[in-house]
Amino acid sequence: MTTERLIAGLRAIVGDEGLILDDHAMQPYLISWRDNWRGRVPAVVRPRTTDQVAAVVRACAHEGKAIVPQGGHTGVTGASQPHDDGSEIVLSLERMNAIRAIDADNDTMTVEAGCVLADVRAAAERADRLFPLLLGAVGSCMIGGNISTNAGGVNVIRYGNTRNLVAGLEVVLPDGEVWDGLRGLRKDNAGYDLKQLFIGAEGTLGVITAAVVRLFPKPRAEITAFVAVPSPQHALRWLVRAKDAFAEQLTAFELIQDICIEVTCRRIPGLHNPLRTASPWYVLMEVSGQGSEDALRAALEDVLAAGLEAGELTDATIAASGQQRDMLWRLRESIPEAHKHEGVSFKHDISVPISRVPEFLTRIEDELDKELPGLRMFTFGHLGDGNLHFNPLLPAGAAAAPGDLQRVNTAVHDLVTAFGGSISAEHGIGRLRLDELTRYKSPVELRMMAALKQLFDPHNVMNPGKLIVPPAPAQK
Amino acid sequence: MTTERLIAGLRAIVGDEGLILDDHAMQPYLISWRDNWRGRVPAVVRPRTTDQVAAVVRACAHEGKAIVPQGGHTGVTGASQPHDDGSEIVLSLERMNAIRAIDADNDTMTVEAGCVLADVRAAAERADRLFPLLLGAVGSCMIGGNISTNAGGVNVIRYGNTRNLVAGLEVVLPDGEVWDGLRGLRKDNAGYDLKQLFIGAEGTLGVITAAVVRLFPKPRAEITAFVAVPSPQHALRWLVRAKDAFAEQLTAFELIQDICIEVTCRRIPGLHNPLRTASPWYVLMEVSGQGSEDALRAALEDVLAAGLEAGELTDATIAASGQQRDMLWRLRESIPEAHKHEGVSFKHDISVPISRVPEFLTRIEDELDKELPGLRMFTFGHLGDGNLHFNPLLPAGAAAAPGDLQRVNTAVHDLVTAFGGSISAEHGIGRLRLDELTRYKSPVELRMMAALKQLFDPHNVMNPGKLIVPPAPAQK
Repeated sequence: MTTERLIAGLRAIVGDEGLILDDHAMQPYLISWRDNWRGRVPAVVRPRTTDQVAAVVRACAHEGKAIVPQGGHTGVTGASQPHDDGSEIVLSLERMNAIRAIDADNDTMTVEAGCVLADVRAAAERADRLFPLLLGAVGSCMIGGNISTNAGGVNVIRYGNTRNLVAGLEVVLPDGEVWDGLRGLRKDNAGYDLKQLFIGAEGTLGVITAAVVRLFPKPRAEITAFVAVPSPQHALRWLVRAKDAFAEQLTAFELIQDICIEVTCRRIPGLHNPLRTASPWYVLMEVSGQGSEDALRAALEDVLAAGLEAGELTDATIAASGQQRDMLWRLRESIPEAHKHEGVSFKHDISVPISRVPEFLTRIEDELDKELPGLRMFTFGHLGDGNLHFNPLLPAGAAAAPGDLQRVNTAVHDLVTAFGGSISAEHGIGRLRLDELTRYKSPVELRMMAALKQLFDPHNVMNPGKLIVPPAPAQK
Repeated sequence: MTTERLIAGLRAIVGDEGLILDDHAMQPYLISWRDNWRGRVPAVVRPRTTDQVAAVVRACAHEGKAIVPQGGHTGVTGASQPHDDGSEIVLSLERMNAIRAIDADNDTMTVEAGCVLADVRAAAERADRLFPLLLGAVGSCMIGGNISTNAGGVNVIRYGNTRNLVAGLEVVLPDGEVWDGLRGLRKDNAGYDLKQLFIGAEGTLGVITAAVVRLFPKPRAEITAFVAVPSPQHALRWLVRAKDAFAEQLTAFELIQDICIEVTCRRIPGLHNPLRTASPWYVLMEVSGQGSEDALRAALEDVLAAGLEAGELTDATIAASGQQRDMLWRLRESIPEAHKHEGVSFKHDISVPISRVPEFLTRIEDELDKELPGLRMFTFGHLGDGNLHFNPLLPAGAAAAPGDLQRVNTAVHDLVTAFGGSISAEHGIGRLRLDELTRYKSPVELRMMAALKQLFDPHNVMNPGKLIVPPAPAQK
């Protein structure tokens, strides 16, 4: 009855074409990307304007219905994943996909939340600018989701996380009010910087409907190299040297364990290790700049020679063409797909101080050897950001015993915490890490988080059960 | 009586050497930098440790005494300025001035709030790193104040505001609890990013006691140029060209009106215009990089030639030595001092989108010509950030009539707001812009700000009367 009334109200706001009620048509919004969750909702609502979003939020608030804001639904922690009890509706931003404005001289662009990341990048490109955010899901993730999860990706070492790419926001608050914070300024110290609250909040404090994002000069030259290093400790020394030599021009610095290359080349057609020398670890790196490609390549060759001389690396190859460069990146980006087929694994998206990555890897291997002997380490990630995708595999063909996942997670996250690190570097908390967040955050921090949630969303209707264990809901 | 008990309590926490009660000795803490405010307090408390800060905050909370956190007390909006009714104490962080740790491989440093900015920079330098924050008060401002006001300065175009330089914080909350958020991570999406709340909050939500700040590779080459441009519109075209040519290597880009150079050279001994050609506008710019100085200079010369060819600039000189470079920067940095002696002026620290600066300057000159004919425009600032110090002067020898300040401020800030700009780009709100903030912010934004203040500081004891008009205090 209430649901019927709500749906009638939603239809009056968004029209028939803005409403999905059919079970089959709803499935893409209800099944998580890794197919580990399936949700159930009475409706998927797809507003076209900020005013429609606000009206939808008010209608749901009025009926006490919770809302799951959703962009491309490509996240891996379930932040955009509805629960299966029918207590929520999905609010998809996908029809809010206009590029509202480009101001090339200000290096900003105003985009709606439902713009696909690749389209944002293409629009910047047409204005001869770079929008630097780049991650595997670029073709389907949406900018509103990128902002709501403070997405990372491969170019953070140079351009920062998504937080650093946002100049302004438009947000529909849980009470249906619209906050227009669409400012395109580099400096603004007039009051609390409210947009920071919504960036990375996973839709728990309001619905981001549009943003002013920052653009950058398009690099005129990019050089990609694949480097063999004896150990993470050597990779760290090589990183320090490369940063000193290139500063911001060091655009990517990815550490890859040999098993990742081996598995990926074995499982994905057309890929091979570009180096003849086998090595226990590799680095995929990129430098980019505004000068000539020849000058940049020469500079990189000099630094590679110095690294070789110092014993930090044992071999290296520089991509000689765009095709070779694409191949190197495809090798890196195919690792997760290849990994999926290699057996049972335990995934972690962790960060520690960059300086402590080598020590962490040594220590965690010892710890896990005690917990679960035979586990195969499978490590790759953004060493330049101290962020590792640490995904050890069970022996080939083995099945996980009950409690294995818990034991491995606990060992990894206990050590991460002891190292001053984060149990979620770039993927967020969502549903996946909710219990662990409660375990690892200090009481004072959890209290502040819960108080903020309570302040903005006292009835706990905005993406409930994500990111933060909510305080008991206020009486309505 | 209550005050006596409070002072006894404070003495028990910080000892005699941590307490200043003598009127004369208190004066530096009570007189604002521009000498436009004088405060009165029963005590200045100078704790040495975070625990002492927490104990002081609890003691004051217990007695209902408000606290004004203070660093170098160099701000110009009165954010660290006590009121004159004796209702507050000053909590000076100056004795918390330890560099707790440097992690060069992680490019981070853990510093206490009372470290003088110059000392933070020097410590980074000793580790062969750069801490890039640089502003006029570098020798006396303190890092806790820099963070609490999200300080800007001359290198924001490359390194961002202070917000971008902070990886972690330690904060004493208004109830005396300590939040240890001293993480040194590049990526951390485990929960709300709470540190963002305290950065730029001007001490209204808690006392920042320590921070993990980010370090950068030390540039190996720096080239400074002084450029004559016909107009702000030409300066903008030149900026766009320079950004495209140098990307992040463009480290500073300052626009200066001819009158600023004329007044400064006339009033400050030893300074002169380095160009022979008179020009209505100038740009002081710097590029820096990791390659050779010769290569960087050659690159800049090429781009200058292209700018000259395109008519964006009419003349330029490149500093040929460190001494010449220092002279150029001294010319820029002496402008505020020279300006002070040139008569009555109306100061504004504003930002608009970079692309709209030229149009803004034309429009505001027209507006002010109507409001107050004869006003001399006096404009300089960080064009690369869209941030202008727009400080028009009354005619030489003229005195301000009642209402002049108000009329000029209103004209400037109305137009700034119409241009989507900020009435306080880098100086903050403090006491100076409190009424104006209320005028220019949207109701929904003011409501969110007030709610945050109320949430963190329900009794309004943490730097009251700064940044935000507080909601009515909760009953204790």
